[in-house]
Amino acid sequence: MQGAALSALRLPFGFAAGGEYHRRRHCRSSGGFGVRMALREDGPSLAIVGVTGAVGQEFLGVISDRDFPYRSIRMLASKRSAGRRLTFEGNEYVIEELKEESFDGVDVALFSAGGSISKAFGPAAVARGCVVVDNSSAFRMDPEVPLVIPEVNPEAMAHIKVGSGKGGLIANPNCSTIICLMAATPLHRQAKVKRMVVSTYQAASGAGAAAMEELELQTREVLDGRPPTCNIFKQQYAFNLFSHNAPVQPNGYNEEEMKLVKETRKIWNDEEVKVTATCIRVPVMRAHAESVNLQFEKPLDEDTAREILRGAPGVVVIDDRASNHFPTPLEVSNKDDVAVGRVRQDISQEGNHGLDIFVCGDQIRKGAALNAIQIAERLL
Amino acid sequence: MQGAALSALRLPFGFAAGGEYHRRRHCRSSGGFGVRMALREDGPSLAIVGVTGAVGQEFLGVISDRDFPYRSIRMLASKRSAGRRLTFEGNEYVIEELKEESFDGVDVALFSAGGSISKAFGPAAVARGCVVVDNSSAFRMDPEVPLVIPEVNPEAMAHIKVGSGKGGLIANPNCSTIICLMAATPLHRQAKVKRMVVSTYQAASGAGAAAMEELELQTREVLDGRPPTCNIFKQQYAFNLFSHNAPVQPNGYNEEEMKLVKETRKIWNDEEVKVTATCIRVPVMRAHAESVNLQFEKPLDEDTAREILRGAPGVVVIDDRASNHFPTPLEVSNKDDVAVGRVRQDISQEGNHGLDIFVCGDQIRKGAALNAIQIAERLL
Repeated sequence: MQGAALSALRLPFGFAAGGEYHRRRHCRSSGGFGVRMALREDGPSLAIVGVTGAVGQEFLGVISDRDFPYRSIRMLASKRSAGRRLTFEGNEYVIEELKEESFDGVDVALFSAGGSISKAFGPAAVARGCVVVDNSSAFRMDPEVPLVIPEVNPEAMAHIKVGSGKGGLIANPNCSTIICLMAATPLHRQAKVKRMVVSTYQAASGAGAAAMEELELQTREVLDGRPPTCNIFKQQYAFNLFSHNAPVQPNGYNEEEMKLVKETRKIWNDEEVKVTATCIRVPVMRAHAESVNLQFEKPLDEDTAREILRGAPGVVVIDDRASNHFPTPLEVSNKDDVAVGRVRQDISQEGNHGLDIFVCGDQIRKGAALNAIQIAERLL
Repeated sequence: MQGAALSALRLPFGFAAGGEYHRRRHCRSSGGFGVRMALREDGPSLAIVGVTGAVGQEFLGVISDRDFPYRSIRMLASKRSAGRRLTFEGNEYVIEELKEESFDGVDVALFSAGGSISKAFGPAAVARGCVVVDNSSAFRMDPEVPLVIPEVNPEAMAHIKVGSGKGGLIANPNCSTIICLMAATPLHRQAKVKRMVVSTYQAASGAGAAAMEELELQTREVLDGRPPTCNIFKQQYAFNLFSHNAPVQPNGYNEEEMKLVKETRKIWNDEEVKVTATCIRVPVMRAHAESVNLQFEKPLDEDTAREILRGAPGVVVIDDRASNHFPTPLEVSNKDDVAVGRVRQDISQEGNHGLDIFVCGDQIRKGAALNAIQIAERLL
């Protein structure tokens, strides 16, 4: 990914009328008779809610990349996008307006259209026997709703079955939480995290496709000596960074930071774990980075930690001190694995009770679409 | 600074033969007879070592902005630049090749030409009775050399006098240390910092003027779909970030991080204070940001902390939660003050014993040139 052009980081915008979903990285050949491997009579019927958004598009990319089986897909979006056509894996689809009836006969619905849409349509989908995997924050802290990273706490959704007729709702954690816990959990299992101090370096993609476009536009404008267009963010983003734009709560933390605090407790099923976070938006396209300081109950040396991380599913260790090669957002963009490096004994703590690590993960992929589809895979 | 064009963040490159030093922000009128206020018979004779570099240029800007008095300035650089002319405050100077004899009759020399130049020429300057303020890391950890932030520990250099004939050497701390301690020290005085976890967001300028140019060039290239030119950094910097390029030490910390650890101890004269740091380079031009988590010996509530910071010299508090307005690198670029915001009680610590803060400061200015000239001002 060194020297990747910006185009490789963009989303596959192809949703004009008759638009085609363009594969970002590779085009696998179709199966016989023009039928894709993933299109199977015994696969579930899917619905994608918010298919025109950044995560919605990535859902399609991940389904394709992973040969996720399906016998049908309903492409759902707002009224504004309804009627547009898109071609996915050789089949043409018409985008439909999201309605409660959209979920009739749907086994699994992947939601990524914001919290209010999830609140309005999630329960209706469940009532129709559909299993909803929701990427919004609407239900994450609902004690009845499992909040799941498949590599971390798959047991939380063990009671939900696809096709049982009962339906169910599973929440996808926030991107920053997923990326942090992919690396922190294997270490937590070994030495029990007592306290975690996180500082994030978050990409434009977390604010959606329009934010990515705005970063690119602003950068061109600033380079040309023109004032930057500020529609999505209220301030210059190009060649700048700023505290995450989520609203600040009375305790001084913004909502993004509190997600990291609360979701970590829920996913680890540990109300005692101490977490503080500072969430910052940096001018990067689609992958988050996080500097994570860990305090452990039990000692854990850095070599053991590195070995544990090397063996952790969905984690890749990039930690080459001699050549100063560590994870970067660019290197993990469009990748599934979360990359961890800068693994070192925290010299501010006694007796090997602390580590500093630096984590990068694709915000749209493992931070959102991939995690949701991995949840669906586990359910099948 | 909202909507600032990139030109405002650039350095005043004006050092072609016969080039003129261009004031970035304002042109004050000259005094009578074309003589600038700062050019005074009773001012010290100055030398600037590395005058063609990013910090060297900023030395001139700060001298001008602050009406720093001088009766003469020797503009010193490598042989390569010798003979070029520059106009500063209405007077024309010829850049001279740096030699030991360059310091004959010089009262104060401001060095910013890298550690090896400081090692080679600093002692020679001191031997000639010159007071050297050195911006490199060459002497920072020398127990005989004061390491000074004027707002923090001016007492460390009380024994050094300009014009005493004895000479002397004072080290300017690393930019990240200065910016961090400008905010942390007032709080440390109140409640004693026990442990500090720092994550940095460092600008291109810390790697010099050529790095700033490379970031701009790379950004244009990536936007045009071309591969980025990687001369200063070995990897793509545009729309990316990476672990600071300083060499990694056997303990896993890079040298930039260890500067924060060691320099904090020296400046605070406190070998017990625990510091850990993760230093990251972000695609920002000339101001650093730092996320700082503080653990205190004594309780300190956030309102008191904010009041203390509001009263601290060289610090401005930008902490408007309602409008989500906090410090940004862009907002502090070309400014003297270090900005602090996101001041909040750390919810991961008990009994008001912790705070999280977010700090931004101009790397070239307070992080280097301004601090050095403030040191010189105190000495006069």
